Amino acid sequence: ERSYTLTLLPGDGIGPEVVAVAKDVLSLTASLEGIKFHFKEMPMGGSALDAAGVPLPDETLDTAKGSDAVLLGAIGGYKWDKNEKHLKPETGLLQLRVGLGVYANLRPAVVLPQLVHASTLKKEVAEGVDLMVVRELTGGIYFGKPRGFGTNDNNEDIGFNTELYSASEIDRIARVAFEVARKRNGKLCSVDKANVLEASMLWRKRVTMLASEYPDVELSHMYVDNAAMQLIRDPKQFDTIVTNNIFGDILSDEASMLTGSIGMLPSASIGESGPGLFEPIHGSAPDIAGQDKANPLATVLSAAMLLKYGLGEESAAQRIEAAVIETLNRGFRTGDIFSSGTTLVGCKRMGEEVLKCV
Amino acid sequence: ERSYTLTLLPGDGIGPEVVAVAKDVLSLTASLEGIKFHFKEMPMGGSALDAAGVPLPDETLDTAKGSDAVLLGAIGGYKWDKNEKHLKPETGLLQLRVGLGVYANLRPAVVLPQLVHASTLKKEVAEGVDLMVVRELTGGIYFGKPRGFGTNDNNEDIGFNTELYSASEIDRIARVAFEVARKRNGKLCSVDKANVLEASMLWRKRVTMLASEYPDVELSHMYVDNAAMQLIRDPKQFDTIVTNNIFGDILSDEASMLTGSIGMLPSASIGESGPGLFEPIHGSAPDIAGQDKANPLATVLSAAMLLKYGLGEESAAQRIEAAVIETLNRGFRTGDIFSSGTTLVGCKRMGEEVLKCV
Ligand SMILES: CC(C)[C@H](C(=O)O)[C@@H](O)C(=O)O
Ligand SMILES: CC(C)[C@H](C(=O)O)[C@@H](O)C(=O)O
Repeated sequence: ERSYTLTLLPGDGIGPEVVAVAKDVLSLTASLEGIKFHFKEMPMGGSALDAAGVPLPDETLDTAKGSDAVLLGAIGGYKWDKNEKHLKPETGLLQLRVGLGVYANLRPAVVLPQLVHASTLKKEVAEGVDLMVVRELTGGIYFGKPRGFGTNDNNEDIGFNTELYSASEIDRIARVAFEVARKRNGKLCSVDKANVLEASMLWRKRVTMLASEYPDVELSHMYVDNAAMQLIRDPKQFDTIVTNNIFGDILSDEASMLTGSIGMLPSASIGESGPGLFEPIHGSAPDIAGQDKANPLATVLSAAMLLKYGLGEESAAQRIEAAVIETLNRGFRTGDIFSSGTTLVGCKRMGEEVLKCV
Repeated sequence: ERSYTLTLLPGDGIGPEVVAVAKDVLSLTASLEGIKFHFKEMPMGGSALDAAGVPLPDETLDTAKGSDAVLLGAIGGYKWDKNEKHLKPETGLLQLRVGLGVYANLRPAVVLPQLVHASTLKKEVAEGVDLMVVRELTGGIYFGKPRGFGTNDNNEDIGFNTELYSASEIDRIARVAFEVARKRNGKLCSVDKANVLEASMLWRKRVTMLASEYPDVELSHMYVDNAAMQLIRDPKQFDTIVTNNIFGDILSDEASMLTGSIGMLPSASIGESGPGLFEPIHGSAPDIAGQDKANPLATVLSAAMLLKYGLGEESAAQRIEAAVIETLNRGFRTGDIFSSGTTLVGCKRMGEEVLKCV
């Protein structure tokens, strides 16, 4: 019997509700697949701030590091929005990413046939969209130094950040992206702003150099402004996209909204070795927290990514993905993806329906 | 008789074709409105590189500075894509912006009733979209120092750029945006990444401080990743958006593609005093250059913005805008906005039809 320790970080807002569902789905899947999970639930984000005064307590990071994979719900809320930087829930998330060394963020955006109508795009444009954004997650302007506040020669306040990439940082994320593209449809589009930024020029140079090692992958390059347009004009032109931290933040959110159902979209963040971090792409949705209205499917699908990318448990991952599809086919919908003719259910009930299909 | 000197920068690709049309439209409008234009045509971009070895010759910048307003076609092309940075057409454009001190880039994205079908968004989502992106144009990561290439402690290549804003840079663009919002529907959304970047934290602080001077404008703040989503989910929620240089580059292109007709969209770049720079938002489209296929309406509408924002000639501006609408109502369309039941025309013929309506 394979046995794994999983760190659960429910976090804030709807986080605890959706993680509870995913935990049940993981448990049942495990028993059917001959896997054993030890769950360790730890505080993180705003709830950790309230309880322990920091957004990522040391014990949480240590537990996460010592486990086989980490499942996060969501963090943040109005309550902590005005906090100083080091006391923001978001800072805890950034610390967790760096602490785990998960430099590759995989964010699929898939329009499921059952949910085509949810997209604000025309049916013929949305139908069949199936792309993956590979975002660099532990470098670039999010972490580059120098950063901070100061004054300039005119004694005016200034705020500044540094966008910086090294060759090895680019190479390792590019390799992940080439590998991902290879397992998908073999098309990789690298997005940068190499017509203006030196950091992007190096990015383009390194990605281009690596391409010779992946002759089976068709590499193209696109400027970020054009990519933001092309995602709307014709999202089906994309298979795998690789880009830096900040462009990836923007483009992966844009791509996910093309599907119209961000309550459905998971993500995986992985590093060279050590546990990966898996989380829904949606936020903590404080306005509906505790009302049993959240869509738990993005977290359930994140659990599937955890099994696949984090533990190599392909068959268990497929079992969960199939259960989610079957639940949709049976017509169950939370409010965010509801349409007439389907059955509106809450977060808990959606979880129960998925369990029936696992 | 009011008399103005206009610098025309046809540039590369389809630039010369579309600027020729706009020039004719400006000339006829002038004669009807009792205005006199002196046109000075100067090289810029790739064509200047070929002719003079630099993307922005000194005489071009001097002429532009000495004129009342500048109309640019488009620059760039495959031919110069691999040039070193200081020999890229794009570098000439950045030098022109800084040289003219045009720190405020106004980019309207409007879905005209005649062209709703061109959007990839569902009709009910696209219909009535009318927003303006006010992008900071001469600061931030485009120009921040230090920038360049180097090596790190591991002797690896690095590439880096600096995102930097000073209080006065933020204040002046925010003021333009508040003024623009005031003349529109009184709603201003400031977009930043203040949950991560210090440069954005200062941005948000200054914009918030200025809000008290514009009590009639309703100010909101949004993170850039969320803005990229909201533009797709519900673009009608936006009236005026203000943001930094790089986020504005991405979001204004995204917003323009929502309309599905980027061949229709103009832009204005203005500074404290001195001539403004007016240009279509589309590129040089080398693949259709010289084939009389380009849509000249974005440049014609840029000429209208030139009259309005550059010269304060409101009535002449309205005359041109009305002529464009009337031309569309008469059913004339270039290939990019063609749909069955309309009349397909080339660039020149479209220009002639607009002239009939001026
Ligand atoms: C919360 C925030 C720091 C984070 C990011 O910008 O990376 C989020 O937007 C995301 O994409 O996971
Ligand atoms: C050509 C390029 C330098 C330019 C920019 O990034 O500003 C363009 O994308 C634009 O938006 O005008």
